[in-house]
Amino acid sequence: MSTVENVDAKAIFLKSYPKGEPQPAHFETRSIPRPTLNDGEVLLRTVWMSVDPYMRGRMRPDVKSYIPPFSLDEPLDGGAVSEVIDSKSEKFAAGDYVVGFAGGWKSLHKASADAMTKVDPTVAPLSAYLGVLGMPGLTAWAGLTQICQPKEGETLFVSGAAGAVGSLVCQLGKKRGLRVVGSAGSAEKCAWLEAEGGCDVAINYKEHRGSAALTRALAAAAPKGVDCYFENVGGDHLEAALNCIGFGGRIALCGMISVYNATDPQPGPPNLTNMIGRGVLAKGFIVSNYMHLTPDFIAEVAPALAAGQIKFRESVYDGLENAPDAFAGLFRGDNFGKAVVRIGPDRL
Amino acid sequence: MSTVENVDAKAIFLKSYPKGEPQPAHFETRSIPRPTLNDGEVLLRTVWMSVDPYMRGRMRPDVKSYIPPFSLDEPLDGGAVSEVIDSKSEKFAAGDYVVGFAGGWKSLHKASADAMTKVDPTVAPLSAYLGVLGMPGLTAWAGLTQICQPKEGETLFVSGAAGAVGSLVCQLGKKRGLRVVGSAGSAEKCAWLEAEGGCDVAINYKEHRGSAALTRALAAAAPKGVDCYFENVGGDHLEAALNCIGFGGRIALCGMISVYNATDPQPGPPNLTNMIGRGVLAKGFIVSNYMHLTPDFIAEVAPALAAGQIKFRESVYDGLENAPDAFAGLFRGDNFGKAVVRIGPDRL
Repeated sequence: MSTVENVDAKAIFLKSYPKGEPQPAHFETRSIPRPTLNDGEVLLRTVWMSVDPYMRGRMRPDVKSYIPPFSLDEPLDGGAVSEVIDSKSEKFAAGDYVVGFAGGWKSLHKASADAMTKVDPTVAPLSAYLGVLGMPGLTAWAGLTQICQPKEGETLFVSGAAGAVGSLVCQLGKKRGLRVVGSAGSAEKCAWLEAEGGCDVAINYKEHRGSAALTRALAAAAPKGVDCYFENVGGDHLEAALNCIGFGGRIALCGMISVYNATDPQPGPPNLTNMIGRGVLAKGFIVSNYMHLTPDFIAEVAPALAAGQIKFRESVYDGLENAPDAFAGLFRGDNFGKAVVRIGPDRL
Repeated sequence: MSTVENVDAKAIFLKSYPKGEPQPAHFETRSIPRPTLNDGEVLLRTVWMSVDPYMRGRMRPDVKSYIPPFSLDEPLDGGAVSEVIDSKSEKFAAGDYVVGFAGGWKSLHKASADAMTKVDPTVAPLSAYLGVLGMPGLTAWAGLTQICQPKEGETLFVSGAAGAVGSLVCQLGKKRGLRVVGSAGSAEKCAWLEAEGGCDVAINYKEHRGSAALTRALAAAAPKGVDCYFENVGGDHLEAALNCIGFGGRIALCGMISVYNATDPQPGPPNLTNMIGRGVLAKGFIVSNYMHLTPDFIAEVAPALAAGQIKFRESVYDGLENAPDAFAGLFRGDNFGKAVVRIGPDRL
């Protein structure tokens, strides 16, 4: 039986704002006070935490965004699956597992019970609630269905296709009868994408450096042109997509990981004018715009996952102290599928 | 009484594809054969012709677009108001005035009667059917109403605000209860925009060179941020708009005149990532996507024009031989309002 007293209260802080690629040296682990509970709150032991590219944006103190930057004086934060170890809410009892947008980067935390959602460890592995059944999953589903709005027979291009979001986009696209072209950064990832990940063709972009080469590879893989582009990468990928996009194309702007660490401004693609003549729509989005569609997302993805029709991959890091390395790995292209950090055992 | 025999048949040809800014030397006037009519066709004397920025795109032989490039061996073409001087169609009689997407750059031409629309010279000056009541007018109306979809009280930014399209966008925006900020390239244009052209604030971009300065000027003029951006210019204007755009902003991508003559690829703005966090939509369009909305456009604009609630300006060039200079003037910023070329008298 677990007790509160057994659990260390530690958290990762940002020591300095990274310029360029984040490195483990930008982070440090500190002890934090044990939270005390008020009515309506739960005490939570973090079991799995998520590292996600959007967190890089919160490490810029000067950028106006939808979410405030991380402070150097408070623990980092992010999505996590946690176990309830004490509860002052009727909603949860000790031993329950919950997912929410808080608890990441910490071993112990408290939250309002209203901010947490119960998860069932018998339906899917707990970590899946941070990936294919969680925020990246909803991101993939919403960008594809609400922005790209693909029609059967169309061609979908997905950059970052082996990532947590991209790999689900590809499979949801295939399920809808699309021709799916994905790009990823290794032969191993591309092989998986073509074998299991829903891609008709996977392009290893490291073999097609520069926008001209990437455009040729994409044009060959998408001979009828690109109708929908799910953007996770930016830079040359966006330029190649705009070269190959067809009339009435739709672009879901989900991320641009290639530019997040730039220390100098990275110019956008020179071919934005293609959007005019070809009547292209591009829409940026963040998952919180689409939270209300969670039931529709779950209704499609959970049964398909249970039936083995949707596959997912994870890169698992062990221990809170390795969270900074897991995060840095996002930008090195190290991770394959969803990057998650195991903070504690599933059962104490 | 006019007769067919009185009218010279001349046309402007492209002598070579311009690299960089088009110059009169890229064009030449040649005699062309007098057209002979088939059933269903009309012989037309061009009265007014239009020069429009989109034509620059047709002077690139290598670019895939919605409309094929101009050939060096055929006359140029474009929108015109013409007088019917002979008719083999029951739709029109000699003396009628018609508007259509053909007849520009020529003194005499023939067309299928089905491709022409009759216009009434007593409702508005004939040249207005090439501007505020014509293709630029529909472009303005459609981009604003179908893409920007502004709500009362929002802020609209319009680049190229003193142009044929931009000046109507500003006035339609003001009519809808928006705060309207326009940019133009001279103090005279800005004064007109604030006095008559529907702008709360007009920014002379030549006094705010570079994206940082333009961003500061726009932020000052749009203290609540930009909700809608009507894009005619590209480059620094797009970058400034993306710096100032608010959550859920909408961008109608109509033109990017600042990059049309570039001989080297012009990088896009470095702040496209703002579209993600702020959930911004951008949609490119050309007027032909919205031709079916012509009745709605006319229903709003024609009465407002007749009532003097909508103003327009024209830059008039005289004579077919000056059409190349009128066209080149689009890129020098010479023109104020719609640039039109008078090819022949309204009445022979």
